[in-house]
Amino acid sequence: MSLAILQATVADAVHAVIDAGRVSAARGWVPATSGNFSARGQDGRIAITASGVDKGALTAADVLEIPLDALPPAGSSAETGLHLALYRRDPAIGAVVHIHSTHATVLSRRQASAREIRLEGYELLKAFAGIRTHATRLAVPIFPNSQDIAALADEVDRRLGSAPPAPGYLLAGHGLYAWGATMRDALRHAEAFEFLFGCELVGAAA
Amino acid sequence: MSLAILQATVADAVHAVIDAGRVSAARGWVPATSGNFSARGQDGRIAITASGVDKGALTAADVLEIPLDALPPAGSSAETGLHLALYRRDPAIGAVVHIHSTHATVLSRRQASAREIRLEGYELLKAFAGIRTHATRLAVPIFPNSQDIAALADEVDRRLGSAPPAPGYLLAGHGLYAWGATMRDALRHAEAFEFLFGCELVGAAA
Amino acid sequence: MSLAILQATVADAVHAVIDAGRVSAARGWVPATSGNFSARGQDGRIAITASGVDKGALTAADVLEIPLDALPPAGSSAETGLHLALYRRDPAIGAVVHIHSTHATVLSRRQASAREIRLEGYELLKAFAGIRTHATRLAVPIFPNSQDIAALADEVDRRLGSAPPAPGYLLAGHGLYAWGATMRDALRHAEAFEFLFGCELVGAAA
Amino acid sequence: MSLAILQATVADAVHAVIDAGRVSAARGWVPATSGNFSARGQDGRIAITASGVDKGALTAADVLEIPLDALPPAGSSAETGLHLALYRRDPAIGAVVHIHSTHATVLSRRQASAREIRLEGYELLKAFAGIRTHATRLAVPIFPNSQDIAALADEVDRRLGSAPPAPGYLLAGHGLYAWGATMRDALRHAEAFEFLFGCELVGAAA
Repeated sequence: MSLAILQATVADAVHAVIDAGRVSAARGWVPATSGNFSARGQDGRIAITASGVDKGALTAADVLEIPLDALPPAGSSAETGLHLALYRRDPAIGAVVHIHSTHATVLSRRQASAREIRLEGYELLKAFAGIRTHATRLAVPIFPNSQDIAALADEVDRRLGSAPPAPGYLLAGHGLYAWGATMRDALRHAEAFEFLFGCELVGAAA
Repeated sequence: MSLAILQATVADAVHAVIDAGRVSAARGWVPATSGNFSARGQDGRIAITASGVDKGALTAADVLEIPLDALPPAGSSAETGLHLALYRRDPAIGAVVHIHSTHATVLSRRQASAREIRLEGYELLKAFAGIRTHATRLAVPIFPNSQDIAALADEVDRRLGSAPPAPGYLLAGHGLYAWGATMRDALRHAEAFEFLFGCELVGAAA
Repeated sequence: MSLAILQATVADAVHAVIDAGRVSAARGWVPATSGNFSARGQDGRIAITASGVDKGALTAADVLEIPLDALPPAGSSAETGLHLALYRRDPAIGAVVHIHSTHATVLSRRQASAREIRLEGYELLKAFAGIRTHATRLAVPIFPNSQDIAALADEVDRRLGSAPPAPGYLLAGHGLYAWGATMRDALRHAEAFEFLFGCELVGAAA
Repeated sequence: MSLAILQATVADAVHAVIDAGRVSAARGWVPATSGNFSARGQDGRIAITASGVDKGALTAADVLEIPLDALPPAGSSAETGLHLALYRRDPAIGAVVHIHSTHATVLSRRQASAREIRLEGYELLKAFAGIRTHATRLAVPIFPNSQDIAALADEVDRRLGSAPPAPGYLLAGHGLYAWGATMRDALRHAEAFEFLFGCELVGAAA
């Protein structure tokens, strides 16, 4: 899997968003039109899902192409600002996925007061770039959910700092944001988080 | 997703019922020929699944078209009366789905004596029309199960009143009724309830 | 769903067995070549799966046609005797399914010393022929597992008596036997048992 | 299912690896490019998945063909050494699968200090060659996870000895290794382990 395709054409970016929605819907990650997906195009604009559509059946008409530094246009999702803030803070980010899985929702509520989930001793931690051994303690940040997206984006940006511990964070009772250099990377990271959250929940119940 | 298609032709209504059955069967919501589905046609008649058929393999022959105010005909499901009562009480309802999921069944039994399930702090509450923030406490009504459908329909009608808290209710040990302006809305509401019930159960177990 | 097709041709019986295997494999009911399926043909012979084959990919060559009263031939499953005993005791039985689901396995172990599982207050109890209300208490018999199939078949026959409480029983740590007038009925019964066992387990965990 | 196909051509071995990846991905056993698969070819070389590829979409270009006794080449998975050690110790082994399921991960962590999982009283134990009754106690070995694959391979080899209790072992927090005479056998063994681990976890939670 190549990490080199950092700059896709806009058409590629739209296509990646459509594919990501279909894959995520098949996994049950975007119930009831929730979730949103974006990818950065070669011209710097961001292809991102519009508000309220079924993410498993996207067409190009459901994907907006917006400049990085303008205000989100009409029809855009309320959470567009959280996507844009990630692209602005790190030019190496090429794709962002936001999903609402049962695992992410339950675990983010349970750990909300701790403000993080610690993942430790899992071989699958090596799915994240830069981690080379299971003997790692990774703290995934959790933020209180908010409908004030601008304030939330600022809070995320401050806390992640210059070296985020992991390519993702949780909003309590809401879901997971994950990112990567390409959409393939962002989806692999989301899949790894999902697996690890599932292990934490099953391990706590058994 | 348009809420404008309030009045489908009868053929559209039959088609929506067949599709809803197939989607719901694929999700495991209608085990052992359980569940039933209906949609209101342009002429005011209701297209509704017949009794005892496999909801994942419906044909037009399995869908009855019945007047809103007559007694359910031979071959109709015992629960037809619960569907008709919803259409009579609110002209904005265009489709009703009744499903028997594990989540709805277990949670409705566990909470039967409380007569409701409170859902609070979930971003996905915004999937229901009129809810704009996760900082909402939604009480989903639970009714004791009964084989006296006429009496049950009356009880539901009285308790829901003029402003139901949510587009759905539970029958204890039985399943979920959910509705919407269109079949797409009714299915989205069912999917949102299912997700939230699943979070409650997984959260209680972990 | 017609209960009238009590006597299928032998070719129909073989076809029903192949279909039942495919459906059951898709649901995860027959892991690692476990499970077996049979149907009674018009000539009184029983079409039954051979030993050790993948039940999700059966061909006619994997289905044996055997007389009701002879000893099981070479290549037949060790559990053929349990199928034949059911057909002998009740001429109204047209099909038998034996599955190894997680739910049936775990619950049959947990309840082994009680020798039964009581199911009560579930609407889905009405999926079983003759049950017309959720206000029913159904006791599903559990037998200790045994490799002495002849002795086990006799014990089952004695305990079921002339009026079995339900169209099925469990072998502890092993799985479910369910039956019906047709394969469709037997599969519907298996699906209802599975759902109810799942509700019991999820309800106990939550 | 024939155990006789012990020596496949190299092309057959590559094909078996590709198929095993697709089957395993569909079951959720190889999240986030984890897992690896190998088969022994007729010429003694081992066909094995390369590092870091999506196991659900393998092509022949993703499968390396390597000699049994050489050092793993560039592009091979870090865990290639664990596969080769199994082929070297037993000429009857024709295929090895390594998967990262939630069940295997959670159970291997929970039982890590006991260094084994005991499986007892399950009919499905008979899925393993040589086991003829459920009245068996099978101890599946668990090893501490390690990034030093050569040392780990030696430790596995010593502990398994000349007569391993089961055709598989666990790495704590990491996953399952399972093997068989053919890829079909290795996958059937993996499926049986998965089912039994799932029963243990569900049984502990309920």
